[in-house]
Amino acid sequence: MTNTIESFAGEDILSVNQFDRESLNAIFSIAHEMRVLVERFGSAELLQGKILANLFYEPSTRTSSSFTAAMQRLGGQVIPINNVQYSSVSKGESLPDTIRTLECYADVIVIRHPEVGAAATAAYYAHKPVINAGDGVGEHPTQALLDLFTVQEELQQVDELTVAMVGDLRFGRTVHSLTKLLLNYNVSFIFVSPEILRLPADVLAAVDASGHSYAQVEDLHSVIGEADVLYMTRVQRERFTDLAEYDRVKDFFVVDQALMSQARERMIVMHPLPRVGEISYALDDDPRSAYFRQMRNGMYIRMALLAALLGKA
Amino acid sequence: MTNTIESFAGEDILSVNQFDRESLNAIFSIAHEMRVLVERFGSAELLQGKILANLFYEPSTRTSSSFTAAMQRLGGQVIPINNVQYSSVSKGESLPDTIRTLECYADVIVIRHPEVGAAATAAYYAHKPVINAGDGVGEHPTQALLDLFTVQEELQQVDELTVAMVGDLRFGRTVHSLTKLLLNYNVSFIFVSPEILRLPADVLAAVDASGHSYAQVEDLHSVIGEADVLYMTRVQRERFTDLAEYDRVKDFFVVDQALMSQARERMIVMHPLPRVGEISYALDDDPRSAYFRQMRNGMYIRMALLAALLGKA
Amino acid sequence: MTNTIESFAGEDILSVNQFDRESLNAIFSIAHEMRVLVERFGSAELLQGKILANLFYEPSTRTSSSFTAAMQRLGGQVIPINNVQYSSVSKGESLPDTIRTLECYADVIVIRHPEVGAAATAAYYAHKPVINAGDGVGEHPTQALLDLFTVQEELQQVDELTVAMVGDLRFGRTVHSLTKLLLNYNVSFIFVSPEILRLPADVLAAVDASGHSYAQVEDLHSVIGEADVLYMTRVQRERFTDLAEYDRVKDFFVVDQALMSQARERMIVMHPLPRVGEISYALDDDPRSAYFRQMRNGMYIRMALLAALLGKA
Repeated sequence: MTNTIESFAGEDILSVNQFDRESLNAIFSIAHEMRVLVERFGSAELLQGKILANLFYEPSTRTSSSFTAAMQRLGGQVIPINNVQYSSVSKGESLPDTIRTLECYADVIVIRHPEVGAAATAAYYAHKPVINAGDGVGEHPTQALLDLFTVQEELQQVDELTVAMVGDLRFGRTVHSLTKLLLNYNVSFIFVSPEILRLPADVLAAVDASGHSYAQVEDLHSVIGEADVLYMTRVQRERFTDLAEYDRVKDFFVVDQALMSQARERMIVMHPLPRVGEISYALDDDPRSAYFRQMRNGMYIRMALLAALLGKA
Repeated sequence: MTNTIESFAGEDILSVNQFDRESLNAIFSIAHEMRVLVERFGSAELLQGKILANLFYEPSTRTSSSFTAAMQRLGGQVIPINNVQYSSVSKGESLPDTIRTLECYADVIVIRHPEVGAAATAAYYAHKPVINAGDGVGEHPTQALLDLFTVQEELQQVDELTVAMVGDLRFGRTVHSLTKLLLNYNVSFIFVSPEILRLPADVLAAVDASGHSYAQVEDLHSVIGEADVLYMTRVQRERFTDLAEYDRVKDFFVVDQALMSQARERMIVMHPLPRVGEISYALDDDPRSAYFRQMRNGMYIRMALLAALLGKA
Repeated sequence: MTNTIESFAGEDILSVNQFDRESLNAIFSIAHEMRVLVERFGSAELLQGKILANLFYEPSTRTSSSFTAAMQRLGGQVIPINNVQYSSVSKGESLPDTIRTLECYADVIVIRHPEVGAAATAAYYAHKPVINAGDGVGEHPTQALLDLFTVQEELQQVDELTVAMVGDLRFGRTVHSLTKLLLNYNVSFIFVSPEILRLPADVLAAVDASGHSYAQVEDLHSVIGEADVLYMTRVQRERFTDLAEYDRVKDFFVVDQALMSQARERMIVMHPLPRVGEISYALDDDPRSAYFRQMRNGMYIRMALLAALLGKA
């Protein structure tokens, strides 16, 4: 993918690896315009007459609703396809045939699928743009884009920031993708996790190779004062074979008011949601809590991508 | 809630207790305009660019479709969320987080939930208007509003009418809510039910305290000639421990042509639907059978509420 | 049904038996205009403000999506009703009551139902137009229309063609319906199937009675060179009690490059999809492979029918 915005027209969005700093800037610039548009007018008619096939092989209310709203706020329409376990797919139809059928009806296809590579397969066969909305343990690029866009919108910069990634860094797909995107910027990383849930070797190697400074620590309390961005994820009890170890560390990765009293004045707390206890509800009114604005940014990013892919940005 | 129509903007619709005679008049006046609008033009563009999140934690084709059509006939769009048993809710997400996510995408939220108080919880956390579309054995206020609106539209009055409520008055949520709304008017009640399915003490106490005249009888045949409104509900066999008692009374609460031959010329038969035998199909063409017009009125009431809450009434 | 296009307004589409050559021409003429419209402009506003209730008692992603896209491309809106197993239908509501409720909200109803005659029942009770989108082993008339339209669009004629129907001709609903429609034209048939999966007696009798020439053969290879249209369907192993027989004949009904090298230059391969092995993927780029264009024609046919039934053609 080249890096001018025109070049997005007709493309697919499959992986964060497609993006460099220039294309990120281009997308974020449109996403910001989408935010202004929605805040001022609520909606536009940029994609009037266009149809999105929203193909979810596994449920994700959040992502599905976000794409739906993004299309609708640009005046487009959505074909919701949520019950594919019951559809002709379950009668044995291949993914390529499903995709080639849907592109007969729609102008752009969003696909969520439990298998790695499903979105790439869909894009290979489709003549219309395909957006990967999560392919199992693979990628979920629009999540990473909205995460990075949130940093930019909230702090007006990405360079020079210290980003603390917290929780399950081993299995957390969003952490891996956001980390990769952040390598395009001059940031420092603090990776905060239990020993057994550290960042995978390949991701860490990429950070190393890029020359970015980073630290790996086990307790959030010791580093909270340094973070400009606190990116929280959930530490699941089920990941631990030694539950005594779980009990020892579990409170190291919980954000509450006591912890936030040690945080900077100008910083943000992010979370891909859903959360289950790792951020106290008491913090929801803290202006540094950015996770609901982050949700909203998801809609702006998806509006930007839909407009760009359909040549209307 | 104050009683001018402007005051609805931004409010929630959670309970029939929010409404007094003046606010009912205001809503019914808009609903009547919506009826004229649909009958003449089919649809309008009043809510163009607005999005409704239609959040159903339990299925209800009728209510869900009615809200969808209401939004669409005003030019708005709908995010359908029907499979929440499979969604991130089932991954453990709290209702407040679900609501605060959806309000990032939508302008108004309709919620149906099996638990009493769920809609109020949603409204407490939401910054956008919330409409209760049924919270378990709690309330379903738009049903009560459409029921009352149907009386007004069909008979051009509510005062001075005799309203017969028939069937399962003990568990019938729609009966309780409509009865409460009718206390704002000068009506007489006839409560027709088996002994064991009489109106609950608290609802009856409210009728008593308000000074409205009422009677409680066991057989519809004895009172059919007095009713201006016959509000039917289903008597379920499962409610009876003594099946001999069920067999004795079951035909007391069925409307057929023989019964209707004793009814007034100018009166209406209503039913919240679905029916299962308590109204003969042979009566569907009787001009007094108002239950399908009642369905249609549901759409007009919901159009009125959506427009009012979004400040476009 | 009379045969001018105006006469479709307010009608139902229940069976291929409603159509004669003149009405087919009228529908195909509109469908072709729809194709031009979509190819040039993507969409139109012909049905703006109109609502389609898309009522699927059994899942069919393909058909459901096709109707949805057809309505949306004409500017209309769709109420998706996919989970009727969970709806008030499952609480015991009758189909007539469901239909009469939905027509309170919508302008046209599409129904897919597992029982023969369900669509006719729906149409009997509805005051709004009803389209049969498949009623069990009954009919699926829009499929037959799109099949025939594909022949017309691809080959610019129907008369004088030799049509080979291949595979499971006994249980293949699409084959029966298309065959009936083709009796309106001067065509020759070749029915290619295993002995036990031959065309049912009543369909064959209709072909016989109409005086059309036909042949019944067991191996596609022997007749491939004569076909202008090759209409493929799937031969399911489960249909055979004698699996040795299945093994003997199964390759007689598979289309691959070797077979197609013996086919005419100007002919088309069709399939209602989904396919499971009966057409090689290697043929997808062969210009004679019309099955994906056939899908797209489904949208055009449904656009034409929706516009015609709603009096906007």
